[in-house]
Amino acid sequence: MTDDPLVIANRSFQSRLLVGTGKYRDLDETGAATEASGAEIVTVALRRSNIGQDPDQPNLLDAIPPERYTILPNTAGCYSAKDAVRTCRLARELLDGHNLVKLEVLGDEKTLYPEMRETFSAAETLVADGFEVMVYMTDDPIAARQLEEIGCVAVMPLAAPIGSGLGIQNRYNLLEIIDNAGVPVLVDAGVGTASDAAVAMELGCDGVLMNSAIAGAREPVRMATAMRHAVIAGREAYLAGRIPRKRNASASSPLDGTFF
Amino acid sequence: MTDDPLVIANRSFQSRLLVGTGKYRDLDETGAATEASGAEIVTVALRRSNIGQDPDQPNLLDAIPPERYTILPNTAGCYSAKDAVRTCRLARELLDGHNLVKLEVLGDEKTLYPEMRETFSAAETLVADGFEVMVYMTDDPIAARQLEEIGCVAVMPLAAPIGSGLGIQNRYNLLEIIDNAGVPVLVDAGVGTASDAAVAMELGCDGVLMNSAIAGAREPVRMATAMRHAVIAGREAYLAGRIPRKRNASASSPLDGTFF
Amino acid sequence: MTDDPLVIANRSFQSRLLVGTGKYRDLDETGAATEASGAEIVTVALRRSNIGQDPDQPNLLDAIPPERYTILPNTAGCYSAKDAVRTCRLARELLDGHNLVKLEVLGDEKTLYPEMRETFSAAETLVADGFEVMVYMTDDPIAARQLEEIGCVAVMPLAAPIGSGLGIQNRYNLLEIIDNAGVPVLVDAGVGTASDAAVAMELGCDGVLMNSAIAGAREPVRMATAMRHAVIAGREAYLAGRIPRKRNASASSPLDGTFF
Amino acid sequence: MTDDPLVIANRSFQSRLLVGTGKYRDLDETGAATEASGAEIVTVALRRSNIGQDPDQPNLLDAIPPERYTILPNTAGCYSAKDAVRTCRLARELLDGHNLVKLEVLGDEKTLYPEMRETFSAAETLVADGFEVMVYMTDDPIAARQLEEIGCVAVMPLAAPIGSGLGIQNRYNLLEIIDNAGVPVLVDAGVGTASDAAVAMELGCDGVLMNSAIAGAREPVRMATAMRHAVIAGREAYLAGRIPRKRNASASSPLDGTFF
Repeated sequence: MTDDPLVIANRSFQSRLLVGTGKYRDLDETGAATEASGAEIVTVALRRSNIGQDPDQPNLLDAIPPERYTILPNTAGCYSAKDAVRTCRLARELLDGHNLVKLEVLGDEKTLYPEMRETFSAAETLVADGFEVMVYMTDDPIAARQLEEIGCVAVMPLAAPIGSGLGIQNRYNLLEIIDNAGVPVLVDAGVGTASDAAVAMELGCDGVLMNSAIAGAREPVRMATAMRHAVIAGREAYLAGRIPRKRNASASSPLDGTFF
Repeated sequence: MTDDPLVIANRSFQSRLLVGTGKYRDLDETGAATEASGAEIVTVALRRSNIGQDPDQPNLLDAIPPERYTILPNTAGCYSAKDAVRTCRLARELLDGHNLVKLEVLGDEKTLYPEMRETFSAAETLVADGFEVMVYMTDDPIAARQLEEIGCVAVMPLAAPIGSGLGIQNRYNLLEIIDNAGVPVLVDAGVGTASDAAVAMELGCDGVLMNSAIAGAREPVRMATAMRHAVIAGREAYLAGRIPRKRNASASSPLDGTFF
Repeated sequence: MTDDPLVIANRSFQSRLLVGTGKYRDLDETGAATEASGAEIVTVALRRSNIGQDPDQPNLLDAIPPERYTILPNTAGCYSAKDAVRTCRLARELLDGHNLVKLEVLGDEKTLYPEMRETFSAAETLVADGFEVMVYMTDDPIAARQLEEIGCVAVMPLAAPIGSGLGIQNRYNLLEIIDNAGVPVLVDAGVGTASDAAVAMELGCDGVLMNSAIAGAREPVRMATAMRHAVIAGREAYLAGRIPRKRNASASSPLDGTFF
Repeated sequence: MTDDPLVIANRSFQSRLLVGTGKYRDLDETGAATEASGAEIVTVALRRSNIGQDPDQPNLLDAIPPERYTILPNTAGCYSAKDAVRTCRLARELLDGHNLVKLEVLGDEKTLYPEMRETFSAAETLVADGFEVMVYMTDDPIAARQLEEIGCVAVMPLAAPIGSGLGIQNRYNLLEIIDNAGVPVLVDAGVGTASDAAVAMELGCDGVLMNSAIAGAREPVRMATAMRHAVIAGREAYLAGRIPRKRNASASSPLDGTFF
């Protein structure tokens, strides 16, 4: 089967699964699960991971070598535009001018929901400063359009709260974002198991980013394998064009959407 | 990742996806989609397929060679125990003593729902006659237990009506059947797209059988690929042990199931 | 608003909510909740309730006087056709020739699922013996049609397991039963809260029977009130004809059912 | 049953159903449906309704007399903070100093989604100008908290797009908003039928506002009745405390939320 690559900020990727590096038992497990996932883009929480800030501690980049993976620094743990911008600049310095970042500005510690006004402000500053900004956001279709207009290179609506494992809560919002987007739409946060990732891709998302669903599974490496297959399954099903839903086998009784 | 094989009637299979052969454009497409699916068990509607009854017509077994695939004759189109039993006996004759069959006795043409009383009766006759009976049925947990007691080698509850593409309607019934079963539980009928197959496997089903979802897709071979990945994804996710669902990222706020 | 009455076996009822009498704290609460529910048909588990079998114990019929309510004896706790038939005959004796019964034959104690083969057998015997049989059943559309053919005066598919509070699991099966039925279709078992009852009525059910959802609520009398309103709400919404589902406000974008 | 009244900006209401006045056939139907709904708060789109701007046309307030109903002017059709603020000021003038308004600033004509940045801006201006602002918004929990902090007297998250009839898409967001709110939370937009309104109330919303679901029904007055009962049903069920969801009748098998 042929498929177009995923293109983000002029970089091409074969895999449409993006993974995080938090919550693993140790760096060995991080490396093994990342490899099993088939991911090419790996996001790193700069405030919680050592990618060289402390030369005396184990370096995450030994498990996730930048020669092999596209490192995507993120601003997890930032609760203001100012903090997020500062964190991105630090990342660029540590990674020799690497411009691609995942922006997240959080609203509170309990929900880890995005604070959208600060997110807009940080996105504007970062784009002006030459960053290629992939942006974590609510699933608000209007905000998605505006963040694209600001110049973000990908929009990353949440499926459900970070770490919740609840799966996709609002398919209509995702569809609306996908229908209108001129940049890749990646579901970020909320995936719990393989079918959730498949559903996201079947809706037409360009990719899925996850961390807890893999790192928190009983067997993380096995779940990484599951997710690799799930993203391929959902993507291929989207491209293959599913059968319509009908109440009965008979072609003459299509579902009219009025009763469920 | 290691996994136990799927064992049905002492035969072992690596693939947990079973496919049908109906509704394809031609035998080439049947062969290509079957191969892409990775299926090892292929079900054949004896009343609608030529597997040698008519030596002057194209033979389905040229596209699906029995040396390579386990052929599973089914009784699609039978509306009584008597018809179903006769059809199985004809299959055994055509296939040189092959005993493994998929029994379906239908209740009406509109829904293609199983007629359970006739199904019980046919199962009893066929088991007594030496057949290894995989049985299409409603998702009734009590009936599943009873069909196993009669001696069926696999129970095959529907997820939704044949050809409907509606996906799994009643997860609780499937879980109940799975929890109690001593024989493989295979979801049969109702799958619409890849995530539906993944969900079935995540619930703990031993396998999934489908036909319309692949043959009716815009690109059947591509959908067969999607389904192959989806069944692996769901199986691996089941074995890997998913994260629990929680309302929030904080581990201290588990979902208590009271509100949705 | 005018509405046809609910007619079961030539008896007319204004209320479409039927209630059980089990699990209340005492007979006072039973009486108060029953009154608040507005129900006119009240079902009584003959094996667990004293309606005169033991003249020395409190009599349920003091709280639920037969002059005011239509008493519907049921065979809860019966696991065979034989037991169920005997129980119905005992009820008829105790209630001076009262013929209307709710038949339930259970498959096991854990799920309280109906045992359909015994249910068929008991229904045939009871109908032949002059009973008016309302029958608890799985949501199997073929079985519903057959039980009607046997002569049952109402079919009562479960929404979910008894006492589970899970709400309606399979809307398609209920719709199929409703579309084909010539007798009233009453959802029996599985309702958890008010919206579940409303959904059942919106699908076109003729009524809803419940017990645990009311008796097990923190405030049973209040929940009885809620259910009374919910059944009216669902019925009136069904008759009023809801708006179609659309992805957007614009009338030109109807939901085509292909994406969720 | 006793219940606290709904209190918005120090005004008390018995009814928790709020209705709009658009899309009716004529003013007679508007009046009849409004009365049947039992609503005490009636919202009026100032840009589309004549409440005195044109003395030569029929006046909506003849059908919905302000002596009887609390008129809630809204800014439907406004796509900027500036327009919305101007519209509210015009309303105040027409209604003799009436300060209570429903603010909506829309993002586009297709989805009628709120434009949140303009909504924040308009809310700040209106609150400073002495208005009591009820605010239509996305279901973003962080934004809800911030709009309350600005001084809005009620937050009104959408359940689904205006006029879509899709029902509540994201229960988790609503629950999060409800858990944190110090002002009433009213679901606004997206209700399709009675059970949707009941679900909103069961989640703990303080009220529900709708228009299309009633005005667009085949029989609007009947649907208004249905909605009146549905809101009461959902509210009473919320207060009564529903039974927990369990997989089986047995109390020892509570749902652990891991499988669906």
